[in-house]
Amino acid sequence: MSSNRPPAPRGEPERPRVDPNLEVREHRRGQRPGDSYVRIVRPFEEEFEHEGGRLVATERTMHGRTGWSSTMLGLRTFLIGRPISSEEEHSERLTKVKALAIFSSDNISSSAYGPEEILRVLSFAGAGALLLTLPIAALIIGMLMIVMLSYRQTIKAYPLGASSYLVASDNLGDRAGVTAAASLLIGYVVTVAVSVSAGVAALTSIEPALFDFRVVLGVALVGILALGNLRGIRESGSIFMAPTYLYIVLLLGIMGYALFRLASGSLPDYVSPPEWALEDGSSALGLFLILRAFSQGAVALTGVEAISDGVPAFQAPEWRNARTTLTWATIIFGVLFLGIAYLVTTLGIIPDPSEEQTVLSLLIRHVVGDGWLLVLAQVATALILVLAANTSFADFPRLSSFLARDGFMPRQFGFRGERLAFTTGILALSAMAVVLMITFGGSVAGLIPLYTLGVFVAFTLSQTGMLVRWWRRRELGWRRGLLINGLGAATTAVVAVVVGSSNFFQGSWMVIVLVPALMALLLGIRSHYRAMATQLKVDARADDDTVPDPIVIVPIARLDPPARRALAFARHISPDATGVHITNDPDSAAALRKDWEELGGPMELVVVESPYRALIGPLLRYMNALQAQAPDRPIVVVLSEIVPRHWWENLLHNQTSLRLKLRLFGRKNTIVADVPYHLHDE
Amino acid sequence: MSSNRPPAPRGEPERPRVDPNLEVREHRRGQRPGDSYVRIVRPFEEEFEHEGGRLVATERTMHGRTGWSSTMLGLRTFLIGRPISSEEEHSERLTKVKALAIFSSDNISSSAYGPEEILRVLSFAGAGALLLTLPIAALIIGMLMIVMLSYRQTIKAYPLGASSYLVASDNLGDRAGVTAAASLLIGYVVTVAVSVSAGVAALTSIEPALFDFRVVLGVALVGILALGNLRGIRESGSIFMAPTYLYIVLLLGIMGYALFRLASGSLPDYVSPPEWALEDGSSALGLFLILRAFSQGAVALTGVEAISDGVPAFQAPEWRNARTTLTWATIIFGVLFLGIAYLVTTLGIIPDPSEEQTVLSLLIRHVVGDGWLLVLAQVATALILVLAANTSFADFPRLSSFLARDGFMPRQFGFRGERLAFTTGILALSAMAVVLMITFGGSVAGLIPLYTLGVFVAFTLSQTGMLVRWWRRRELGWRRGLLINGLGAATTAVVAVVVGSSNFFQGSWMVIVLVPALMALLLGIRSHYRAMATQLKVDARADDDTVPDPIVIVPIARLDPPARRALAFARHISPDATGVHITNDPDSAAALRKDWEELGGPMELVVVESPYRALIGPLLRYMNALQAQAPDRPIVVVLSEIVPRHWWENLLHNQTSLRLKLRLFGRKNTIVADVPYHLHDE
Repeated sequence: MSSNRPPAPRGEPERPRVDPNLEVREHRRGQRPGDSYVRIVRPFEEEFEHEGGRLVATERTMHGRTGWSSTMLGLRTFLIGRPISSEEEHSERLTKVKALAIFSSDNISSSAYGPEEILRVLSFAGAGALLLTLPIAALIIGMLMIVMLSYRQTIKAYPLGASSYLVASDNLGDRAGVTAAASLLIGYVVTVAVSVSAGVAALTSIEPALFDFRVVLGVALVGILALGNLRGIRESGSIFMAPTYLYIVLLLGIMGYALFRLASGSLPDYVSPPEWALEDGSSALGLFLILRAFSQGAVALTGVEAISDGVPAFQAPEWRNARTTLTWATIIFGVLFLGIAYLVTTLGIIPDPSEEQTVLSLLIRHVVGDGWLLVLAQVATALILVLAANTSFADFPRLSSFLARDGFMPRQFGFRGERLAFTTGILALSAMAVVLMITFGGSVAGLIPLYTLGVFVAFTLSQTGMLVRWWRRRELGWRRGLLINGLGAATTAVVAVVVGSSNFFQGSWMVIVLVPALMALLLGIRSHYRAMATQLKVDARADDDTVPDPIVIVPIARLDPPARRALAFARHISPDATGVHITNDPDSAAALRKDWEELGGPMELVVVESPYRALIGPLLRYMNALQAQAPDRPIVVVLSEIVPRHWWENLLHNQTSLRLKLRLFGRKNTIVADVPYHLHDE
Repeated sequence: MSSNRPPAPRGEPERPRVDPNLEVREHRRGQRPGDSYVRIVRPFEEEFEHEGGRLVATERTMHGRTGWSSTMLGLRTFLIGRPISSEEEHSERLTKVKALAIFSSDNISSSAYGPEEILRVLSFAGAGALLLTLPIAALIIGMLMIVMLSYRQTIKAYPLGASSYLVASDNLGDRAGVTAAASLLIGYVVTVAVSVSAGVAALTSIEPALFDFRVVLGVALVGILALGNLRGIRESGSIFMAPTYLYIVLLLGIMGYALFRLASGSLPDYVSPPEWALEDGSSALGLFLILRAFSQGAVALTGVEAISDGVPAFQAPEWRNARTTLTWATIIFGVLFLGIAYLVTTLGIIPDPSEEQTVLSLLIRHVVGDGWLLVLAQVATALILVLAANTSFADFPRLSSFLARDGFMPRQFGFRGERLAFTTGILALSAMAVVLMITFGGSVAGLIPLYTLGVFVAFTLSQTGMLVRWWRRRELGWRRGLLINGLGAATTAVVAVVVGSSNFFQGSWMVIVLVPALMALLLGIRSHYRAMATQLKVDARADDDTVPDPIVIVPIARLDPPARRALAFARHISPDATGVHITNDPDSAAALRKDWEELGGPMELVVVESPYRALIGPLLRYMNALQAQAPDRPIVVVLSEIVPRHWWENLLHNQTSLRLKLRLFGRKNTIVADVPYHLHDE
């Protein structure tokens, strides 16, 4: 190898030897004269350990050493915690109790706003129509049971993750999978927006002065969620476990107390503020309105996917624990949802048209009064809703990482950050949810129509996938499985159609537009990656491991030390590197040529006069002219750049070389080499 | 030289010869056998002409050849015209008639809003106080005469440009020059904002429906001005010459007609809308209010600097033509300003508190009625005001270029664009004026207090500079010159103090804060450039024209064709270039090592395992460890980058290498070489 090296520039001493494996050979003399030996030392052991022929970076390599980057790293560690190594991953698993808190919060928390949204639609048809709330709620719970049973089978069949995307791709092909994925991605974004908005509504119900700030509060909550999730999954579990159980216990307690007072006749009559009074028959109670009320209530079912998605996060045996958790979550949700619907209709509570107070807060206030219990219940409600949003913070990045792995999304969605979280996915989700909340001014009623459709499309595809799977495999119990999943698929398909059509003008048209658009994007990305892979495979077969000798040019403005450094580097690369000076001033060119003859060494200088003062156009054309003489040879443009001590001083330098680099980036067969010149302390 | 070239990689054919001077030697056989000769051909003559040992780029090199850049260039040519070569510069000179239109528009157009602003302040003291308008206007004109005489001397003394910055630096030193420059720069920005806002006010006076859009209209006008100026100076002259003379002729005509009707008693009494009625004595008519009224009116003087600034743009003899133009501009302005002030006070016109209609429009409407003449006069007013803003579009970039030349501003302010205009200065001015207009909601009365102070500070410094100059040189007539400039300096100094103190809370405090801040910035920039120049001079003395042999590493993720191309290039630079693979997956590392042994050639591969999945931290530390072994040797990082066919596809590639480049940019002794790999048609 060493016979192959280029000759050293004139007068340069033999360069010191560098060992890329960081094992420095130390030549020592022994005790006796003439007795010498070679010792291998490893001065970099603190940062790189040697292990089986490779180097292993220690945590120390993660830290910046200088001012700014060290400060940023300190801030990041404070916000999201110290890095977690990949080997620590396995311990990040969830017990059933924790998993219920995390994954079922989406489901259970729907009880806080589901009944209200049913009421709100029915109230268009006057006070009498509100009596339909309970039957609609019961119908929804019935459907939920079917879906739950159906998903218990999916979870068992896909213990590594039962996301609709995976199930649909696996059984129905890529396009079905992408349809499910697009629907779910949109669904997750809306989940965050809806849940956070509903959580804020729970808070503004206690303190109406907050109502004007509901968008700001919502955005702040999304920011906190994003930070929490960048810290990693297990810690989120610990942070948020308490509120879920607090919500369940408090709500069950309050419901029991209310039922007791109702039965004993000690609960006074509920009186709505007179300005909320419903005009009877302002809208006819047709089938359409009932369907819309049903659609609004069907948000309750959207939480089912969360547990199925999260199967691999459970402790072993994953699928069994996930199933049990799903069943419990469904039961708890059913009791709360029906209980609240029953109490609200029995008492005759009407929703606040301004959305300042939630129906649930009106109910609790009527039962337990204005005291600390109301505040506690509302805070618990807000927290469980925020936790429900958190579900999407687990699901969206995970689904994105699946999509990135399969080439449907940019690769950075598949990279895990230092804390094992999918950084890009978390940031993308937060940004889109914030946009949505701002667009809809934080109104839950406004957001709900966007919510349900996507999720039900995904459900239907997933259940249909299971149908196909049973049919193909004919495993033990396939007939029963077919029946259950068939019922599930039929139910969710009907709901999807109902939701899509009855809410069309309220917002589901957006989903109907967005899902295909997102699908086109995902498929387009994959076809790009695939075309690239094909090209790389074809190119790999051709033996292109030799690159012709490059043509090397150095654009220079002056013959100052930065330029001379770039020229010296250029000489290392090629013995006939050329300096190029583009100018609109023939006199300064003559002066430069004189300097060049003194200092420029044996290289050639070409002066290109540009009467139009443009630099980049003539340079590019000059490069074309060079390459036209030898089309295969790549051209190396060596640029000198001044690196100032402070980043903001860059505004005073390198503007031209930045513009040049942007133009050269897309140019074929062009290599750009940046030779920095550091300004030191003044 | 050619003995010095590195050995060609195995099996590569002799590379074709490339002539950097674009003279290709053609070896030809003659008619008779054995008879051959060498001919020099120049196949690139269309783009590069050969002239005395250098190449001259033709206009053809300015055009992009491919889709996007060619489209952009077409759009640019449509908007700002074809490039102008430096040699064409001399023809871009202005006749006196044109120069009056361009440079005096600032001055003359002040007559459209100056009297109104005096009235507006006086009206705080009730209707009786308005009678002071004419005396104040007369005082201002008297002062203007003094300043004009004073500047006639300055123009003669500085025929190459009599900007206050130049005069103050030349005679009073850098700090005085920078003070004048900072004051003027701010003044120019405010000029644009005030003049455009006043122009819009002239339009809304005809069509009040436009009033709600005044900010949008103003921003659009600034955009048009910016485009016009990017086209270059002479064409601006032709575009805008007509309106200036139209304004002068129309206003003089209307004034004459009004005086005639007044004298003949045929002009009816003027009646203000009752809701504008002034409460008598709502504010006492103290000295302070009179001084404020005077300050508001003193905007009239700000235009003097424009002609002095533009001396070199006049036809020869520059100074004499400029002086004559200045005198004429002052006379025309004086007649208009006094005439309008006289008519307005005689008729008893009161300003519209909402600023929807200008006083000038009220006057014209009263004299000539609501017909086409009113519309024409208002349009001419709007146009001359826009042209006044245009003055700053000539002055600000020119002053910036002086400052850039002297090292007080970033160098790009000194570069002329393809049309001989200072592109960066024009864009910076437009942006700041737009910010100002939006901040003040397009209100002329709100902007004026920011306007006058800066300009008068600059005046004072310029005149004081002239004083010093006379005193030092004692040329013929120096006593007379000293007297005139002394009077000028004293007058403008008094005005500066009056304006600064009387308008302090109305806005001149901003100028008092901004001027020193801008000065600090300008001085800071120069000290940065100077420190750099000193360092470069010191470094230039040291013989650093040899760079030690670089250490070359190639970070790779896979051994795909892009990576192999980067590796091949790295081998060209250094025989012991090393591949570095950073991974969190030991298995994929083993697979890569296997591939490497098959395909990687004789290079070494170092695998660094990063259990925290980070890439950049460990790579930087690895580079530190390499360089610690040989601190002088630069390190070259060869990066492979995928260049997709469409720019937006970049989102799918190179995210990591982009992050890496950002981190490597500031690193000492680090050269980054980008080796592109082009994806071709799919």
